[in-house]
Amino acid sequence: MSDSKKVVLAYSGGLDTSVILKWLQDNYRCEVVTFTADIGQGEELEPARQKALQLGIKPENIFIDDLREEFVRDFVFPMFRANTIYEGEYLLGTSIARPLIAKRQIEIANQVGADTVSHGATGKGNDQVRFELGYYALRPGIKVIAPWREWDLLSREKLLAYAESAGIPIEMKHKQGGAPYSMDANLLHISYEGRHLEDPKAEAEESMWRWTVSPEAAPDAPQYLDLEFERGDPVALDGVRLAPHEMLARLNEIGGRHGIGRLDLVENRYVGMKSRGCYETPGGTILLKAHRGIESITLDRGSAHLKDELMPRYAELIYNGYWWSPERRAIQALIDQTQQFVNGWVRLKLYKGSVQVVSRDSKDSLFDQTIATFDDDGGAYNQKDAEGFIKLNALRLRIASAKRG
Amino acid sequence: MSDSKKVVLAYSGGLDTSVILKWLQDNYRCEVVTFTADIGQGEELEPARQKALQLGIKPENIFIDDLREEFVRDFVFPMFRANTIYEGEYLLGTSIARPLIAKRQIEIANQVGADTVSHGATGKGNDQVRFELGYYALRPGIKVIAPWREWDLLSREKLLAYAESAGIPIEMKHKQGGAPYSMDANLLHISYEGRHLEDPKAEAEESMWRWTVSPEAAPDAPQYLDLEFERGDPVALDGVRLAPHEMLARLNEIGGRHGIGRLDLVENRYVGMKSRGCYETPGGTILLKAHRGIESITLDRGSAHLKDELMPRYAELIYNGYWWSPERRAIQALIDQTQQFVNGWVRLKLYKGSVQVVSRDSKDSLFDQTIATFDDDGGAYNQKDAEGFIKLNALRLRIASAKRG
Amino acid sequence: MSDSKKVVLAYSGGLDTSVILKWLQDNYRCEVVTFTADIGQGEELEPARQKALQLGIKPENIFIDDLREEFVRDFVFPMFRANTIYEGEYLLGTSIARPLIAKRQIEIANQVGADTVSHGATGKGNDQVRFELGYYALRPGIKVIAPWREWDLLSREKLLAYAESAGIPIEMKHKQGGAPYSMDANLLHISYEGRHLEDPKAEAEESMWRWTVSPEAAPDAPQYLDLEFERGDPVALDGVRLAPHEMLARLNEIGGRHGIGRLDLVENRYVGMKSRGCYETPGGTILLKAHRGIESITLDRGSAHLKDELMPRYAELIYNGYWWSPERRAIQALIDQTQQFVNGWVRLKLYKGSVQVVSRDSKDSLFDQTIATFDDDGGAYNQKDAEGFIKLNALRLRIASAKRG
Amino acid sequence: MSDSKKVVLAYSGGLDTSVILKWLQDNYRCEVVTFTADIGQGEELEPARQKALQLGIKPENIFIDDLREEFVRDFVFPMFRANTIYEGEYLLGTSIARPLIAKRQIEIANQVGADTVSHGATGKGNDQVRFELGYYALRPGIKVIAPWREWDLLSREKLLAYAESAGIPIEMKHKQGGAPYSMDANLLHISYEGRHLEDPKAEAEESMWRWTVSPEAAPDAPQYLDLEFERGDPVALDGVRLAPHEMLARLNEIGGRHGIGRLDLVENRYVGMKSRGCYETPGGTILLKAHRGIESITLDRGSAHLKDELMPRYAELIYNGYWWSPERRAIQALIDQTQQFVNGWVRLKLYKGSVQVVSRDSKDSLFDQTIATFDDDGGAYNQKDAEGFIKLNALRLRIASAKRG
Repeated sequence: MSDSKKVVLAYSGGLDTSVILKWLQDNYRCEVVTFTADIGQGEELEPARQKALQLGIKPENIFIDDLREEFVRDFVFPMFRANTIYEGEYLLGTSIARPLIAKRQIEIANQVGADTVSHGATGKGNDQVRFELGYYALRPGIKVIAPWREWDLLSREKLLAYAESAGIPIEMKHKQGGAPYSMDANLLHISYEGRHLEDPKAEAEESMWRWTVSPEAAPDAPQYLDLEFERGDPVALDGVRLAPHEMLARLNEIGGRHGIGRLDLVENRYVGMKSRGCYETPGGTILLKAHRGIESITLDRGSAHLKDELMPRYAELIYNGYWWSPERRAIQALIDQTQQFVNGWVRLKLYKGSVQVVSRDSKDSLFDQTIATFDDDGGAYNQKDAEGFIKLNALRLRIASAKRG
Repeated sequence: MSDSKKVVLAYSGGLDTSVILKWLQDNYRCEVVTFTADIGQGEELEPARQKALQLGIKPENIFIDDLREEFVRDFVFPMFRANTIYEGEYLLGTSIARPLIAKRQIEIANQVGADTVSHGATGKGNDQVRFELGYYALRPGIKVIAPWREWDLLSREKLLAYAESAGIPIEMKHKQGGAPYSMDANLLHISYEGRHLEDPKAEAEESMWRWTVSPEAAPDAPQYLDLEFERGDPVALDGVRLAPHEMLARLNEIGGRHGIGRLDLVENRYVGMKSRGCYETPGGTILLKAHRGIESITLDRGSAHLKDELMPRYAELIYNGYWWSPERRAIQALIDQTQQFVNGWVRLKLYKGSVQVVSRDSKDSLFDQTIATFDDDGGAYNQKDAEGFIKLNALRLRIASAKRG
Repeated sequence: MSDSKKVVLAYSGGLDTSVILKWLQDNYRCEVVTFTADIGQGEELEPARQKALQLGIKPENIFIDDLREEFVRDFVFPMFRANTIYEGEYLLGTSIARPLIAKRQIEIANQVGADTVSHGATGKGNDQVRFELGYYALRPGIKVIAPWREWDLLSREKLLAYAESAGIPIEMKHKQGGAPYSMDANLLHISYEGRHLEDPKAEAEESMWRWTVSPEAAPDAPQYLDLEFERGDPVALDGVRLAPHEMLARLNEIGGRHGIGRLDLVENRYVGMKSRGCYETPGGTILLKAHRGIESITLDRGSAHLKDELMPRYAELIYNGYWWSPERRAIQALIDQTQQFVNGWVRLKLYKGSVQVVSRDSKDSLFDQTIATFDDDGGAYNQKDAEGFIKLNALRLRIASAKRG
Repeated sequence: MSDSKKVVLAYSGGLDTSVILKWLQDNYRCEVVTFTADIGQGEELEPARQKALQLGIKPENIFIDDLREEFVRDFVFPMFRANTIYEGEYLLGTSIARPLIAKRQIEIANQVGADTVSHGATGKGNDQVRFELGYYALRPGIKVIAPWREWDLLSREKLLAYAESAGIPIEMKHKQGGAPYSMDANLLHISYEGRHLEDPKAEAEESMWRWTVSPEAAPDAPQYLDLEFERGDPVALDGVRLAPHEMLARLNEIGGRHGIGRLDLVENRYVGMKSRGCYETPGGTILLKAHRGIESITLDRGSAHLKDELMPRYAELIYNGYWWSPERRAIQALIDQTQQFVNGWVRLKLYKGSVQVVSRDSKDSLFDQTIATFDDDGGAYNQKDAEGFIKLNALRLRIASAKRG
């Protein structure tokens, strides 16, 4: 084991990271600094402070930060500018939060003079990769302790036994078998993995879902929303300007009420296995639809198709943890460059799990009614031009056909 | 005007192509052969025969073909193997039918010794391109007459006047202002364009939609479907094997009943303008979701991501009319090669406009529960491997960070 | 014919554009403004002025501009940042000059109040597209006259007859059959097309090449060059800082002396046909090799591979004339973003037609000798990490193999 | 250490793999099977047999295979169909041999009932990845021993000491400091790494190169070659049909004589570091040029550009060791599909390090002189078509410009 002196631990206040905290103290005999971030996971953070104090962390070594605005403004929104979806379905709710946590954790490590960082992600998942690629990209010499890859507490029983012997307070739910799923939440989504989801045949239980009502339980009347965009980001909802994190929170609330944004998926992890996850992304689901809607009238075809072709690569980079890589930044430069005129508003209809664009307008619209009309356009577009267009586009096909029959 | 002697006209039996038929006789003084295809548009074809006879076409010059099975088997299904969507939304219902019509039209031209083909697509749209690229690719020396690009009947009034003077029977609806939308239908979809849709701000009227009930009017109880795939194509529904076109027809019916597959879109036409279209694709919407579902457990990550990156290009090729191009065929070879093990079944839940995958299984599944489990896996996966994996993936980022700060 | 009042003609002073000048006056009865640009084609421009005056152009309607620095700085160098090659071979010498000429021509049109522009490119080539896409992108309402697509002077004889009757002075060479090739030159290259090159089997004659000696005739001793780069652009040659156009001119001279940069190619034109061209690009050939050399030590793998994958698309955009399109600008933003650390120098060896990188260094180098060494690295790199790296990368392949045999 | 019973070692007969052989016997106490392949590295293989016998390997455990034809036919040629180059320069000579060795090694393991394979690649390079990804893909449960990642013989001195103590015969050159470079050779190339090449500033010594004369020392007269292709593969040289491996051997010989195919490169390894390598690929350099030449007249633009865009990805897959992956096979299906008409011949001129295409022809040529000509084409191509072609391609640019100024 390395000789770490001071370690910054990404600390949720929950059982697992509390055990890690203790285990670090026991096994590395190092000073532990806890870092707890509010990225909209919807939990009180003060209990984390209390628990840290209880476990012997010095008050000046406890960091609790509200990162909600930064999270949405600098991570979620830039990602949505690309209409990013992983494997055709997943809105990357967990993936996009990790780079920010890594960044802040390294900042704290620099500030407090720590030589090591630690996290509670397992050795089978993507999150360890996302955290650690972030750490290494931002501070190449940092030491990393990933207890799940080191210790032998691989079963729930062993973990509880360790907690008990270490005097970590154990909530009733853990004694009763623990949370039925492995969950992760932030302003963009909540995810569920494990337990009976490990069988891809098994339908998810209705009781699992936390953020959205079932479509069946959603209101019987649709709701209309007007979403306004500036340079590709949503800035106002039904005429009210909102800060980025307020916008996303509000969209989550409305979407959740209408049963929007549930997903049940088998995905390909970067570490090489398939895994099954369920996700609730109500606000993100609305936002994606709306962003495509506003782009549909403001984005030139060339830019739009270029973005679509690069999107899967960009999604893969984020999913795999390469937010801080030069290639992600390069693609971002391309994407951001295309968003200059992505201004205007979109009207959406939400109803029992579905969201539809029904109307859109923009002062920067490229839709030209005079040209598009089925009626006589008074010469705005010369239909005869189409003949030459087709003839030359067909030329190579004709030559090949003529020569090869 | 070229000296065409015999022309094969893609003939629907409707007003427009009847006027074209007459106009060809009047202006080109050529023998007209009509070709009417059943691709599942849901209209009787015998009236087209009667009308053609009425307009003086010789019985042996009237071709009416049932292309439904070929359409779904050789065009729709191959396209769905790629999870094809144009501009993030559109399932290419019109685009995918054109290459088949062009192919059959050329076959007939070859058979009857015609030197010319003709179609009723306007000079502003994509369909003229799709038809004519097909014609030229399959018979490079063919002559093409596209009346909408030549004649001066550009307003509805002029068209009706011409029809009247030519003795073409005019249905009541045309006298009363005509169909409120320009529509196109086949087994994959029905589309609407024009009229008040020409304002992207205007919400589509509920009365417009023909194939689907509104989500609000759909049943209050969800329906579950089991869809079975072989080599990427759906072969059985709830345990009953169906021919391709029967499968799609059945999915349309079920999806339509649940309000599934409506889309309201502003898209970028190949001819350079934006246009607004509304689409109903109930069966296709279900099929896309299900195909992604079966691929999620049977397709390797490498193939899946490669397909996702190529898909927008492939969609663009089909949208733009390049079905018969060598590059479309080359991409198809790649896609088909990946579908070898895309076998198994998917369970879907349909409810008031939404379709969700809730369960899936396959004898060819790559999902490995032993490895994916959150519980102790008994050594199936060595978590320590992840450290080296991360370290080497991080190496280039670390070196850059160390050298550049 | 349109009612143009004032037309800005891209005027070389040669026979063809002089005939066009006269033809415009005769057929359009409009005021002609001539624009002649120095982009390094290596011809005196004053004769063009004299000839224009002789043909009745008013002195204030004659524009002669030295665009050499702008050409290389804002067009050639940005393109080389992407290591741009069309169809694996062609350095886009002609393509990259057209957007600048179009831009300046429109600027002059705006300045003199002209409603029309005109150029001397034929209806079969790419240049008409490049010019006109530029015109339309920069001034959407401009009128364009492309005489080669309109007139009937399609043979050399007719053209000479017209010139003679119009009193255009005809140089001896034209009377003797004209230039043996259709040529185009600027600071980046000189191209040859037509005549006996129209047979792809025919080897180009040695006498055709103008800028380079034959490799056989080049010096028997190699020459070494040191080229220094800043942010991806060459700034100094053998220690001497040079302005962009001076740099390229100097590289042309040196490269030409060593027989570097000849190319004989059959390429695919945007208008749909294959054509055979021969090119001399001595400076560009050196520059491409050197730029790849400096990138090899300063560019991160992720950025490098991303650039390589986008390059063919970028090359196609430039070849097809889309320099002023939003998608070209978007890709440029990506490329430029990657060049921040592309600083340092490269040593090249030139010898009888070949150019090799033999040495390179940079203060921003990412090459890390400590890690790369075959000798004991003292722990800079842990070879054991490779096992985990391989194991996880192999995981999906192993699972597939295990399940499918 | 794992309990391997029988291990198949990729055995060259050289010092390093002889030490590995002994080390496996000493440390794993397992039966060793040696496998030595002739892939054209240009060394006698019988000495490897003698040495294996000397080191105690049973005759029936010694496998020596001539894989030259299979190597070129099934690996090199398929790769060249894609015009494959890694990072703009490298022809992948080492990368393409590894999958074949892995495949044959696993076949032998299956045949002799071995549970383990072993190779002599270091923990810093790409080859360990290429070997092991191959092993795992072809036999997912195989055990792998990579001694360089395990043992402590990391310096040359320790290795020699071990060899001496183990009674391994040591050639004089090793006692005198060993080969100056780390080399790898097969029918496609010979590579050099290490020693003073580890400084990217240092020019490679002339004495290093083994397969090619220096361009300066090459003949003063050029040589012309005629290369004939069938479905993308070279089949005849100057009219003489040759088997794949004979073809490549012959091209190496001719190219080497003319100083063709030297490369000095800093490349990005899959394991995350940059490394400097020098390569001689005389035959491959000729073949790449010739293949592009024959494609230039026989491949449609759409296929050609698609291939160019996919090539960097395909090259990366091979470089990184994913030959046996589903995605490599999928891309191969696409590439092979495009080669159907890549038939014909190319004439090349070789001279002092450079190779140029000077002539090409094919019965499947898509070059159409009637259309391409600068002379009057008698109506084969209607220049007026170009106007419509440009107008519609410009439409989106014009609309954007008109609306946004």
